[in-house]
Amino acid sequence: MSHSVGIVTAQRATFETPLVFRSGAVLPRYELVYETYGTLNSDRSNAILICHALSGHHHVAGFYADAPKSLGWWDNMVGPGKPIDTDNFFVVGMNNLGGCHGSTGPSSVDPETGKPYGSSFPVITVEDWVESQARLADYLGIDCFAAVIGGSLGGMQALQWSLACPDRVRHVLAIASAPRLTAQNIAFNDVARNAILTDPDFHGGDYYQHNVVPTRGLRLARMLGHITYLSDDAMADKFGRELKSGQYNYGYEVEFQIESYLRYQGDKFAGLFDANTYLLMTKALDYFDPAQDCGGDLNSAFAKARADFLVISFTTDWRFSPQRSREIIRPLLHNGRNVSYAEITSTHGHDSFLMEHPHYFDVVRAYLDNVSREVSA
Amino acid sequence: MSHSVGIVTAQRATFETPLVFRSGAVLPRYELVYETYGTLNSDRSNAILICHALSGHHHVAGFYADAPKSLGWWDNMVGPGKPIDTDNFFVVGMNNLGGCHGSTGPSSVDPETGKPYGSSFPVITVEDWVESQARLADYLGIDCFAAVIGGSLGGMQALQWSLACPDRVRHVLAIASAPRLTAQNIAFNDVARNAILTDPDFHGGDYYQHNVVPTRGLRLARMLGHITYLSDDAMADKFGRELKSGQYNYGYEVEFQIESYLRYQGDKFAGLFDANTYLLMTKALDYFDPAQDCGGDLNSAFAKARADFLVISFTTDWRFSPQRSREIIRPLLHNGRNVSYAEITSTHGHDSFLMEHPHYFDVVRAYLDNVSREVSA
Repeated sequence: MSHSVGIVTAQRATFETPLVFRSGAVLPRYELVYETYGTLNSDRSNAILICHALSGHHHVAGFYADAPKSLGWWDNMVGPGKPIDTDNFFVVGMNNLGGCHGSTGPSSVDPETGKPYGSSFPVITVEDWVESQARLADYLGIDCFAAVIGGSLGGMQALQWSLACPDRVRHVLAIASAPRLTAQNIAFNDVARNAILTDPDFHGGDYYQHNVVPTRGLRLARMLGHITYLSDDAMADKFGRELKSGQYNYGYEVEFQIESYLRYQGDKFAGLFDANTYLLMTKALDYFDPAQDCGGDLNSAFAKARADFLVISFTTDWRFSPQRSREIIRPLLHNGRNVSYAEITSTHGHDSFLMEHPHYFDVVRAYLDNVSREVSA
Repeated sequence: MSHSVGIVTAQRATFETPLVFRSGAVLPRYELVYETYGTLNSDRSNAILICHALSGHHHVAGFYADAPKSLGWWDNMVGPGKPIDTDNFFVVGMNNLGGCHGSTGPSSVDPETGKPYGSSFPVITVEDWVESQARLADYLGIDCFAAVIGGSLGGMQALQWSLACPDRVRHVLAIASAPRLTAQNIAFNDVARNAILTDPDFHGGDYYQHNVVPTRGLRLARMLGHITYLSDDAMADKFGRELKSGQYNYGYEVEFQIESYLRYQGDKFAGLFDANTYLLMTKALDYFDPAQDCGGDLNSAFAKARADFLVISFTTDWRFSPQRSREIIRPLLHNGRNVSYAEITSTHGHDSFLMEHPHYFDVVRAYLDNVSREVSA
């Protein structure tokens, strides 16, 4: 447990000011769960916000006292002496609104009805998340983040911070991300969503009242997702055509190890995650497009940004390829922002952003070491 | 209708000799539907077999008298004066065993039970198909095909002809194909299969007796398939982020045109195709591996081949990329085969093999013109 932030405790903040979603929907009251690591300095200038991706949450680093194996999802990256160094920074992780790990979401009980929100929980966007995250920053007394950091969908939130709150973030780290989804990205999301939406146990999103869970659909969605997280090469290296029983059995049970892996991942996820949250997350991905109000022009969209940027991509990531990171960089350079970019050679596809990799970690560490020199101790 | 083979009629052949599948299963009796175009020459040396891919069938070219719009699936390729020129060749199309277009398959009535085969229809392999196709050749009096041609899964059958019946095929055209699936290929198939297998209307494959069809699962499988048939670029060009109603509606109905397209394709397919056949086709893809009995060594596997080969790939095909075609070529060259190879620049991904493209069609035409000079008129 060296270099660990050690035992951590999730905290909860309640917000009584109604949140008006981009869709026009209103959430009168909501709660966000979050964790913090490190110490906020006297002028409150050393805070870093970690934005999570599709299946992430507030438990970024450390472990819970009653569960020593409950390591945070980015524990390799966040801790004392780690690239996001909690000796220098006060790091905030939160569960996004609409999530299923403690923040108000579709599976939470709506105090107005006494029943889970279910289908009545509003469709949420990256913009709405950033608004809710800014309120959490207010709550914590943080006027301006030293950095907002995220991978994949988390990177989109980090980018949105630079657009919605240009004076409240000095550095944005967008890792394995994209400025907006392509048709192919949306297509994969739509298949995943349709798997859930057409599951007979979905009940229009109100399955909680039926005491069932659309496990079949969520399982398929996760299996499909996993294919897009791994590179073709990584799958070939790890599984190839290896058979589970060493021979063909000519049936529909697991034949190949890759099938065993995917089905296991799907089953595990379907037993833990909320299907409505999965739907919301994929919609937030689809909808994010900073250029939508600028006639599709990203150069205009990013004119508002004031932060400095570190953009990182991974060579074998085909979900959000290096090309997609360059689509982030071009409008930033066009607008005269300071942009650092690293294209990391990695065999692990999109999942690379979660994995320990010397070059990747050195880049993040070096960038944040410079940031730490800007903030007082 | 110029250059069309014109009105065609499907024909039916019955085989009473039991077919022993690679799995050990036995089909005592079966029927194959097929069509032929052009005229078999006097020494029966000008026959070409067209092998179909996942959702294809025997109706390759021309149209039916009662349905002028019922064009064959490769009508742009096959006809008088077309690249596969029916003025020179006697072209045979067939519906594969296990199919759902007239040949004996899971939806056919098993004469022993009086009920559809359903789950009792054996899992079939590319090797079994080639065996059944060789019997059709016997039936038609064709000792040796001038060429066996196929795209995608059809290309695998063409390759298998060169291995199982090396003296019965002089040329093999393997288009947009691969020598065997990768882990990623298998993974996509397994997600598609699981969508069908876990559909409550699947009933273990015996849904016919329940008067239901696993439409949800088959629809998802087809939607997913379509993503892998199109290139990222083609999707971006054709659909991009275009919205169906011009604005975000913040719900789970169709928002983006790509969603509309995919759902339409899924619905259409699910209303026409048999889910059990879909399962069989994907398993045949997974299982095909000529090197399985050679310790994984394709060089050894292709030592049996005697044919000449034309291999064609398409630059934006990511289902079976040009790299996969080179995996076919290497063992052929290793064994001293004559191999022509064309990598066609096309934006249309895997679907390119079905589309009219000047360079692609010129290559096929030129190759088969040479073949036609080998056969007597």
